[in-house]
Amino acid sequence: MGRYRFETGEHELFRKSLRKFLADEAVPYYEDWEKERLIPRTFWKKLGEKGFLCPQVDEAYGGLGLDFSFGVIIGEEMERVGAGLTGVGLHNDIVVPYIESYGTAEQKQRWLPQCVTGDYITAIAMTEPGAGSDLANIKTTANRDGNHYIVNGQKTFITNGIHTNLVVVAVKTNPHERHKGISLLVIEGDTLGFTKGRKLEKVGMHSQDTAELYFEDCRVPISNLLGEEGMGFRYLMEKLQQERLVVALAAQTAAEDMFELTKQYIQERTAFGAKIASFQNTQFKMVEMATKIELGKTFLESLIEEHMAGKDVVTKVSMAKYWITETAREIATECMQLHGGYGYMEEYKIARRYRDIPVMSIYAGTNEIMKVIIAKNLGL
Amino acid sequence: MGRYRFETGEHELFRKSLRKFLADEAVPYYEDWEKERLIPRTFWKKLGEKGFLCPQVDEAYGGLGLDFSFGVIIGEEMERVGAGLTGVGLHNDIVVPYIESYGTAEQKQRWLPQCVTGDYITAIAMTEPGAGSDLANIKTTANRDGNHYIVNGQKTFITNGIHTNLVVVAVKTNPHERHKGISLLVIEGDTLGFTKGRKLEKVGMHSQDTAELYFEDCRVPISNLLGEEGMGFRYLMEKLQQERLVVALAAQTAAEDMFELTKQYIQERTAFGAKIASFQNTQFKMVEMATKIELGKTFLESLIEEHMAGKDVVTKVSMAKYWITETAREIATECMQLHGGYGYMEEYKIARRYRDIPVMSIYAGTNEIMKVIIAKNLGL
Amino acid sequence: MGRYRFETGEHELFRKSLRKFLADEAVPYYEDWEKERLIPRTFWKKLGEKGFLCPQVDEAYGGLGLDFSFGVIIGEEMERVGAGLTGVGLHNDIVVPYIESYGTAEQKQRWLPQCVTGDYITAIAMTEPGAGSDLANIKTTANRDGNHYIVNGQKTFITNGIHTNLVVVAVKTNPHERHKGISLLVIEGDTLGFTKGRKLEKVGMHSQDTAELYFEDCRVPISNLLGEEGMGFRYLMEKLQQERLVVALAAQTAAEDMFELTKQYIQERTAFGAKIASFQNTQFKMVEMATKIELGKTFLESLIEEHMAGKDVVTKVSMAKYWITETAREIATECMQLHGGYGYMEEYKIARRYRDIPVMSIYAGTNEIMKVIIAKNLGL
Amino acid sequence: MGRYRFETGEHELFRKSLRKFLADEAVPYYEDWEKERLIPRTFWKKLGEKGFLCPQVDEAYGGLGLDFSFGVIIGEEMERVGAGLTGVGLHNDIVVPYIESYGTAEQKQRWLPQCVTGDYITAIAMTEPGAGSDLANIKTTANRDGNHYIVNGQKTFITNGIHTNLVVVAVKTNPHERHKGISLLVIEGDTLGFTKGRKLEKVGMHSQDTAELYFEDCRVPISNLLGEEGMGFRYLMEKLQQERLVVALAAQTAAEDMFELTKQYIQERTAFGAKIASFQNTQFKMVEMATKIELGKTFLESLIEEHMAGKDVVTKVSMAKYWITETAREIATECMQLHGGYGYMEEYKIARRYRDIPVMSIYAGTNEIMKVIIAKNLGL
Repeated sequence: MGRYRFETGEHELFRKSLRKFLADEAVPYYEDWEKERLIPRTFWKKLGEKGFLCPQVDEAYGGLGLDFSFGVIIGEEMERVGAGLTGVGLHNDIVVPYIESYGTAEQKQRWLPQCVTGDYITAIAMTEPGAGSDLANIKTTANRDGNHYIVNGQKTFITNGIHTNLVVVAVKTNPHERHKGISLLVIEGDTLGFTKGRKLEKVGMHSQDTAELYFEDCRVPISNLLGEEGMGFRYLMEKLQQERLVVALAAQTAAEDMFELTKQYIQERTAFGAKIASFQNTQFKMVEMATKIELGKTFLESLIEEHMAGKDVVTKVSMAKYWITETAREIATECMQLHGGYGYMEEYKIARRYRDIPVMSIYAGTNEIMKVIIAKNLGL
Repeated sequence: MGRYRFETGEHELFRKSLRKFLADEAVPYYEDWEKERLIPRTFWKKLGEKGFLCPQVDEAYGGLGLDFSFGVIIGEEMERVGAGLTGVGLHNDIVVPYIESYGTAEQKQRWLPQCVTGDYITAIAMTEPGAGSDLANIKTTANRDGNHYIVNGQKTFITNGIHTNLVVVAVKTNPHERHKGISLLVIEGDTLGFTKGRKLEKVGMHSQDTAELYFEDCRVPISNLLGEEGMGFRYLMEKLQQERLVVALAAQTAAEDMFELTKQYIQERTAFGAKIASFQNTQFKMVEMATKIELGKTFLESLIEEHMAGKDVVTKVSMAKYWITETAREIATECMQLHGGYGYMEEYKIARRYRDIPVMSIYAGTNEIMKVIIAKNLGL
Repeated sequence: MGRYRFETGEHELFRKSLRKFLADEAVPYYEDWEKERLIPRTFWKKLGEKGFLCPQVDEAYGGLGLDFSFGVIIGEEMERVGAGLTGVGLHNDIVVPYIESYGTAEQKQRWLPQCVTGDYITAIAMTEPGAGSDLANIKTTANRDGNHYIVNGQKTFITNGIHTNLVVVAVKTNPHERHKGISLLVIEGDTLGFTKGRKLEKVGMHSQDTAELYFEDCRVPISNLLGEEGMGFRYLMEKLQQERLVVALAAQTAAEDMFELTKQYIQERTAFGAKIASFQNTQFKMVEMATKIELGKTFLESLIEEHMAGKDVVTKVSMAKYWITETAREIATECMQLHGGYGYMEEYKIARRYRDIPVMSIYAGTNEIMKVIIAKNLGL
Repeated sequence: MGRYRFETGEHELFRKSLRKFLADEAVPYYEDWEKERLIPRTFWKKLGEKGFLCPQVDEAYGGLGLDFSFGVIIGEEMERVGAGLTGVGLHNDIVVPYIESYGTAEQKQRWLPQCVTGDYITAIAMTEPGAGSDLANIKTTANRDGNHYIVNGQKTFITNGIHTNLVVVAVKTNPHERHKGISLLVIEGDTLGFTKGRKLEKVGMHSQDTAELYFEDCRVPISNLLGEEGMGFRYLMEKLQQERLVVALAAQTAAEDMFELTKQYIQERTAFGAKIASFQNTQFKMVEMATKIELGKTFLESLIEEHMAGKDVVTKVSMAKYWITETAREIATECMQLHGGYGYMEEYKIARRYRDIPVMSIYAGTNEIMKVIIAKNLGL
């Protein structure tokens, strides 16, 4: 009935109401947002009002106390509208969980309710210019000065970078250490010395705001430290699994959407007196895509179950992230090709999908890094 | 614990005892069987004695009344020893089920007990020279003559063709019809007019006996008709799903075995002063294979469950058959390459695997036919 | 010395002076043109002044009387700046040759000199909405009315569509025929009833103006008929070979440029304490790209020679068009990936290349059509 | 006219007479040789009589003084019959050139005439168990003892290993050095202490004799040293280029043969009421193969010319070796698949080709080593 084995009637209702909400509040405006290069804050607020922001958060802090399976549904439905909405999943399933897992009661009280309402839009700042996926090598420093850390450094490729007013920042509290020198600070948007750079121009995901962040003698109270000093790398490694799973889910959803778009196109259009869908080459290409989509979906279903059961899924998550994002990228290329000249025109949705997809093979740890992780876990 | 989600302690015991049996009775002799191009009948008898032939057969006919999940285990363990043992799975999960599903009580009584003991080794004869996978076009005829059918024709690529003494033969009982003219006859080995051709020389699967079968004015009692006249094509279509699933399982098992062989090899061997396993190219190739293996296994697990639950799995079975056999073939190539010169030497097991694997993309319906089926089911 | 075996000192001088010209007149402005979605007419005029427009045209009509090998150089150097300049090669090597080959002396005198100066910017209008690459099926009609044709119809995906003031239009002069009903008319920009649609928004090639053209009771003097009535399809088939060769050359040039960009990037950037270029995965990917680039270049060199020698190159041109454009598209994907997050940012040139490349597999006859042609020529 | 641009009438006559010779003396017996796992010495003698052994050798030593382009023809025509004849090319173009290039006048006089007549069948012994392609690391030693070297060690995967009576052996004359410690010794077949191991059982190339060679206190006169002591590695690197080119040529020839076999098969066979050649999937697969074959051939043509002109072709040879052998392997897989079940039967030639081809990606330096060389030459 539902999309996944583990879905209940509650999931279905949730998905249905979310889909309705998006049909009303996102779909009609999405192309404008793409042109404006931003999702309006008002949309975030509406999401919050309807309970679509961080539904996993404990009811004590204003959430619904739902499990990750509802996050899965939100991620999929956002992606179905457009990859530019990816910032919502980032907020819900990637950043806010840091506060939930490592925050003190006081911190949770301070931040979570506003994350649920959409007053806080969160971001996570790991990557730095020149450091790429090499976290141990970050240059942003946080030096203790009384009850504050003085933060200096620069972050880049930050999703929600323009909107964000609550950023989890990876900093070096001990510059002499590599992994063990990393800590996580929560920095509020109005903190002195914290400024935002220009919105980055990207190949795709235009409506998603990506930006550089600058910290110049930025004074952050030590009460904003998340968890313990020096434990940041471990926290990141732990939370990265859900982040990568969320990316794999988005790529899977995009792949399915592209397949459907193309299926419809080839069944309507004719060439040389026959439906494009009737050519054996078209059929076999579609079959190959459908098969990979089915493999990916089944793998994800199993993986979500294991992840929610608390199993160690590092290897499988890395496999899913690399294989599904790569497959989705190939599917984008094939689907554009099957659209012929129209596939290259922005008025056809496949054009946008084609521009949106390749970054998924890059962010949340490049696919090459996924392979390095898997190789290590295979004992090679 | 077990290999699959659905395995119980009983499955594990079963697998363990089968693996022990094969370690004693098959592994030490397998290379000889390959050279002799035949598995001895005595091995079949031993399998029967231990309950490894057709365990799904009703206890009334000498079986154990187990479900298909035990067939899965038998298929996997046979393949693990060598692809030449594939005839056992064919007997258990492909041919005998025709008798179970479509046979009368009398027929079951007549044949099933000996299928369970190994006195009967079964085969199924569909393919004809020149007809390939095009079943509707077979030329073997069965004309009624009183209480007999007179069968004339020729079949080829028949697994268990040399050993078999009980063959399910697809014949045309009505030559004016295509699909609706096909019926299934069970022909016993000593039937006059039924002869076996030479053992076919194949690229691999040497120990598995593949042969041509000839029927020349072969008189088969009408009591050997399976099910109804003219229903043969429908029966075949129905049973082909399990056949293709069994092939996908074999390919998956072979892929896993090749991966393990290679993993061991690259961890032992050095080149240019370093373990082969330490080169990034080696690692990434291994990772890519491991990922595909994991995808295939998860897909199969889900598929077996759906198949046992009686769902319509035609599309998914066709996907599994084509994708996993193709993937296994690619893995064979890559694994041989990673073995370097030794991979080309028959004393290394990967050499045999490389020769064994490509036929899996061809038999039980070529992968091209799988794609045609999927395309049709996708509505293209 | 030169890039190709067949280059002489004259070619080298030509390339050098063109490269210098482009460095001054195109490179500094190219990004602006991309944003403005148009190359200014003034640039076309400068090209004409310097002799870079249609240098193959006979000196009697103002050209330089050079052979196609100089067109090759122009095509490559334009592409090296950016794929948006592809309209120049279209003008030089694709459209103007129709006039040269099939035009009367009067027509040549009337149009060619202004094509050489850049006063005429030409286009060719084949594709129609819904007809794609199926030329025999075009719907634009040209009915004789005294000394005029009355043209009605619509064309789409027309390169140089906004700037053009001289279009070769494929029309049906006999709607009862398929291939034999097609003729070519030259339609001047100010002809009544000829209007231009909006500039099409494309995934890439932003500076290249692509548009729809409309003809509504457009009266074209019969003296604008190119060659004979009903011969249009044959003319197109003949000229399409050079068109496809030009596309293959552009894709080859783009591939080489992307390779160089990436080579530079990976040699400068570090990750995990080492140059990206030092990882074996990076090296092998680069090697695989370099090999395909070398194969493509050698094939093109040989093909240009055969084309200039007047040999039948239909099969080889179709091979080059499909394989090189597909390879270039794969190279774009790989090169973006090797750039990491920066590859997705518009300020890096690879981002633009990635958006520009996929249309090459589609236009000038999709790669699927190339395969159909090759299959036919192989006798299948 | 000829296959290559550089062929003259003389080449054509040569090819024609060789093809005639092989049609009489090799083709009818080849399958027997495959079964016997050996080409008879008498065939070598006949080749010698007809001038097909080492035609490049100076007339002073009994050769014809022809250039490498004739070696190309011999290599191709041998491969056309079967990959098992690869030992002839090895003798002609790989081993004997060592003597020609580095031998003294006395050595040439002593060995070359018998190489031309077929009395000497040569081999080159580089690879050792465990050392693979890592030449600097060989363990076979040659210690000076008066006017002799005492050779101890073991070589494996030696083509012509059973027939050979003149082996060029790579030895360590200085075990303290890596590359600089290597020298080349010519060891005659009847030298005391030189014995041959068993003939190796391979996946394919059955008629080609591959063996292990043992040297146990084998006394080799110092007059058998080829060139200078310690220069062996440099000599090998130099000669390896022609060796790899010869392998690429063989793979190209095999690919073309497989394509032709398959083209014939699909044009004769029907499935589902239509020629297999008429399905679009078949056609596109054939087109993709034909395109790669054309690319490979054009690249080789250019490469042979550059090689004969004495240019540095290391990078391009490495590209040709890796890409063409890999492509040929893919083509083998595809062609077997297009043959359906018959492709897996030994009576169809594609079956043998499938078994023969994969070693080409491994020997003469694995394709991975080719990539390492290219990467280095690209400056990565």
